[in-house]
Amino acid sequence: MGISYEEFREAIQDGARRRQLLNRDGRPFFVLLSQQFSREELEGLCDTATAIRRLDRHRDGREFLLAILRGHRVMNLFAQPSTRTAQSFIAAADKLGATSSLVSDMRTSSFAKGESVADSVRTLSSFFDTIVVRHPDDEFATQAAWALYRSQRSIPVISAGSGKSQHVTQALLDFYTLRYSFYEHGGVDGKQIAIVGDVARNRAARSLALILTKFRPGGVHFVSPQNFQPDDELLGYLRRHEITVEVSHSLENTLRERGRDLDAIYMTRLQKEWDGGTAGQPKADAKTSELGAGDDYVLRTEFRLLVREDCVIMHPLPRINELPDSWEEHPGFVVWRQVRNGMWMRAALFATIHGAAEEIRARAKRLDLM
Amino acid sequence: MGISYEEFREAIQDGARRRQLLNRDGRPFFVLLSQQFSREELEGLCDTATAIRRLDRHRDGREFLLAILRGHRVMNLFAQPSTRTAQSFIAAADKLGATSSLVSDMRTSSFAKGESVADSVRTLSSFFDTIVVRHPDDEFATQAAWALYRSQRSIPVISAGSGKSQHVTQALLDFYTLRYSFYEHGGVDGKQIAIVGDVARNRAARSLALILTKFRPGGVHFVSPQNFQPDDELLGYLRRHEITVEVSHSLENTLRERGRDLDAIYMTRLQKEWDGGTAGQPKADAKTSELGAGDDYVLRTEFRLLVREDCVIMHPLPRINELPDSWEEHPGFVVWRQVRNGMWMRAALFATIHGAAEEIRARAKRLDLM
Amino acid sequence: MGISYEEFREAIQDGARRRQLLNRDGRPFFVLLSQQFSREELEGLCDTATAIRRLDRHRDGREFLLAILRGHRVMNLFAQPSTRTAQSFIAAADKLGATSSLVSDMRTSSFAKGESVADSVRTLSSFFDTIVVRHPDDEFATQAAWALYRSQRSIPVISAGSGKSQHVTQALLDFYTLRYSFYEHGGVDGKQIAIVGDVARNRAARSLALILTKFRPGGVHFVSPQNFQPDDELLGYLRRHEITVEVSHSLENTLRERGRDLDAIYMTRLQKEWDGGTAGQPKADAKTSELGAGDDYVLRTEFRLLVREDCVIMHPLPRINELPDSWEEHPGFVVWRQVRNGMWMRAALFATIHGAAEEIRARAKRLDLM
Repeated sequence: MGISYEEFREAIQDGARRRQLLNRDGRPFFVLLSQQFSREELEGLCDTATAIRRLDRHRDGREFLLAILRGHRVMNLFAQPSTRTAQSFIAAADKLGATSSLVSDMRTSSFAKGESVADSVRTLSSFFDTIVVRHPDDEFATQAAWALYRSQRSIPVISAGSGKSQHVTQALLDFYTLRYSFYEHGGVDGKQIAIVGDVARNRAARSLALILTKFRPGGVHFVSPQNFQPDDELLGYLRRHEITVEVSHSLENTLRERGRDLDAIYMTRLQKEWDGGTAGQPKADAKTSELGAGDDYVLRTEFRLLVREDCVIMHPLPRINELPDSWEEHPGFVVWRQVRNGMWMRAALFATIHGAAEEIRARAKRLDLM
Repeated sequence: MGISYEEFREAIQDGARRRQLLNRDGRPFFVLLSQQFSREELEGLCDTATAIRRLDRHRDGREFLLAILRGHRVMNLFAQPSTRTAQSFIAAADKLGATSSLVSDMRTSSFAKGESVADSVRTLSSFFDTIVVRHPDDEFATQAAWALYRSQRSIPVISAGSGKSQHVTQALLDFYTLRYSFYEHGGVDGKQIAIVGDVARNRAARSLALILTKFRPGGVHFVSPQNFQPDDELLGYLRRHEITVEVSHSLENTLRERGRDLDAIYMTRLQKEWDGGTAGQPKADAKTSELGAGDDYVLRTEFRLLVREDCVIMHPLPRINELPDSWEEHPGFVVWRQVRNGMWMRAALFATIHGAAEEIRARAKRLDLM
Repeated sequence: MGISYEEFREAIQDGARRRQLLNRDGRPFFVLLSQQFSREELEGLCDTATAIRRLDRHRDGREFLLAILRGHRVMNLFAQPSTRTAQSFIAAADKLGATSSLVSDMRTSSFAKGESVADSVRTLSSFFDTIVVRHPDDEFATQAAWALYRSQRSIPVISAGSGKSQHVTQALLDFYTLRYSFYEHGGVDGKQIAIVGDVARNRAARSLALILTKFRPGGVHFVSPQNFQPDDELLGYLRRHEITVEVSHSLENTLRERGRDLDAIYMTRLQKEWDGGTAGQPKADAKTSELGAGDDYVLRTEFRLLVREDCVIMHPLPRINELPDSWEEHPGFVVWRQVRNGMWMRAALFATIHGAAEEIRARAKRLDLM
């Protein structure tokens, strides 16, 4: 049956072999990494998302969409609780007429009886046409893809957030929101983008940065506490892709000096979930930094004077206090649009994987929706 | 963005402003309170429920219904476990072709990460077209409605039981069952209705009493232990609406004296759930009353001689021992019909909120089903 | 309202009265026992499963199937966790266009409030057209069937595994896989079938053996530790049905002596779940036997030389180490097909119960698929 898990895991780190393993028929089949998509694929996904969003507004368009994946079944295998991500995937599948099951308690499956991950995934996959997986273990999604890569009945696997490192569909929806916001202003190329908060441990921020390497942003500005600044691996990756990167530790100073230059500010929360969790050692000063320095990474209401009115204001949610309600009045506030975009982008991903993207875009064009 | 939560909460207590906030386009949009409906709205809901029930019996009628909310998505956000209420709503949505998600463990959402209720509700609502909420906190449903009232993407909210005080859809189905039972006997007006059990803490009994104020029942007779008799607020409200109210503490005596006058007996369980719960202090003598006096509120088999054969016998379920199986032989026993009516009434509510009620009733009339 | 539970339970043990209680309109209505089906019914179920499987491969066939139970609602009431069985039933219902609800935590229903099983089942059944039940209590499925047998709104009940004794749909899918494997080789009659592992406590193995009594297998060979060999009741039942039965305790010896004669080997796991469970006393030497003797019931890779290449290799899953991956290369390895067959057989069962089996088989024949 061919390739071992270790070979598979290593091969997908390498650009050339990666596409061979993760794509089929020239389309993504296993969706595991933000960096697996080409620029063309990313633009295609965005256009498909827009087409779906606009078709959904009209009765005929909705009926057209509901036939796309009719009879198709999606399993959402969520070992790690995340209601909103799961519901976003389920809504996306619904829009295309597919049915979804949510399997959220792994203890109720046979994992607990000593079965291998490969057997469990293959067994459950027997009843479905696509699997969406979310798991605290960084490698689970890759293991699932490997098990199905080798199976005689292969079905696509989409990672919905794997451990600490990647959250590929969040990155896709964030990128889509950015691109859509700049659509009539030259796109993402040349734009100055600030990413604020706990960049070191935020999967969404990290995954978005990886996607940006497929384009030519004018600069990426990380603003985070010293303890939670982006690691050297991420910074090196961005610089190898010729992205201008800056790292600073004061949001106020950054905005005073460069605020008017910024085209987008991507706010994130100073996260606590991973502290003392199973996935790693908490940094000794984590608590101090969160409680003490936390307010330094709040986009305070009065900062509005320091940024342009056309600056895009984003946040992956949930937020605590770092992006006050007052910002909802700012013309560039697109946080609620991001949430809806998650649904459209995930629908675009399903459609793309199953070869229906072109048909959808063609229909939208014919109806003058694009 | 206008109104504060405190203003919203207060305004919906007031009849005039209430309709302005809870209705849209002349239809209920937020369903929070039993007393929010006018007599005409209640009669319309009942007629729509009957139309749906009858259309569902025939293949063509079923197909017609399945198109009503096709592509529509309902979220059932149930913080408080209640399988049967949730399944009743899901079945109701299914009958009209809508799809449902059940989000029952709030801990798996981002509430746990310190997010505000408003943010959580708005985020989850992004993937849905209607929200049904059930929560032990009396105010949760109101908070959800307020969050969506202010949102740019407003969707309807239906309370499926909020804390100790209201259970509006149970009251609607109970009222529907009463009205249907009396349909060829002059309706609810003039009827003598006994409500037996723990009226003080039973949401269903309390909510039904509130709905009855929109009509002219001949009298409402509460029969309950002294500790659990209706509070002064409820009694005052009923009397202000010119309902004749009696309160007694012996079921046997009430039946011996007035049993032949009764048109309906609404039995309830002496509840234990709230005792010592988070929502309030248990009364000091709660336990005594339940264990000792409980049997005084059982509709014993031999009481059948004390009531008319056309007296309607109801119970919101679950029952323990207060309504023995032997009553199933009584011609007025409609308890199982109540359960099914819950499904039809909830479907009628969905249809009404989304403006499809008239179309449904018209179709049923055209087919001579009404 | 007739029959008491004790009468019902006793009557279904008796062949003649059983059919009267469990069948309606000449079709199975309550599916509780492997031995309730006649040979003709079993063959009909298999043919229907094949028809569904083949129709599902084509767009027209899929659309035809999706209309079979359109608007129909299935409740999966799973008190005992079993993700894969539940998902198999849900997928089966989906294939025929029915919608499913999974109620997996009985504590969230009113059972916890002191309600009777009969009331709970009748209430929940009000929202559905079929109930699938799984419960650790051997009698729960029978109680549910009895409650609905007496109800004015009877709906079918399918047992999805009841306590320790029966797993009727697993037995049906295993039988289907056997029959399909031997379809062009004379069917199940005359075949030599080995059942290996913890036969005493394995519901699947036990239930399959019961179904085989409706046919004329050449012999059934049980291979198990002495502690877990089939009990006298099962052996007596098989012998009364004129099945040649052998019992041995060494897999290696059995294969060396008889391996080339075997037409099928049905492997099972040495189970631990029931040890110390609520349903019975663990045998004193259970642990010893599992840890010590376990490897004696592994189908070791080198045993391949002892069996024919056309021997059918089965396992109900999950497996631990008793059926190594290397067997996937053997031409008779049908374990993954078994999993898919579970879905097709459960769809066939739904169709049969609701009277659609003949229509499905006729359609498949007309399209030359059978």
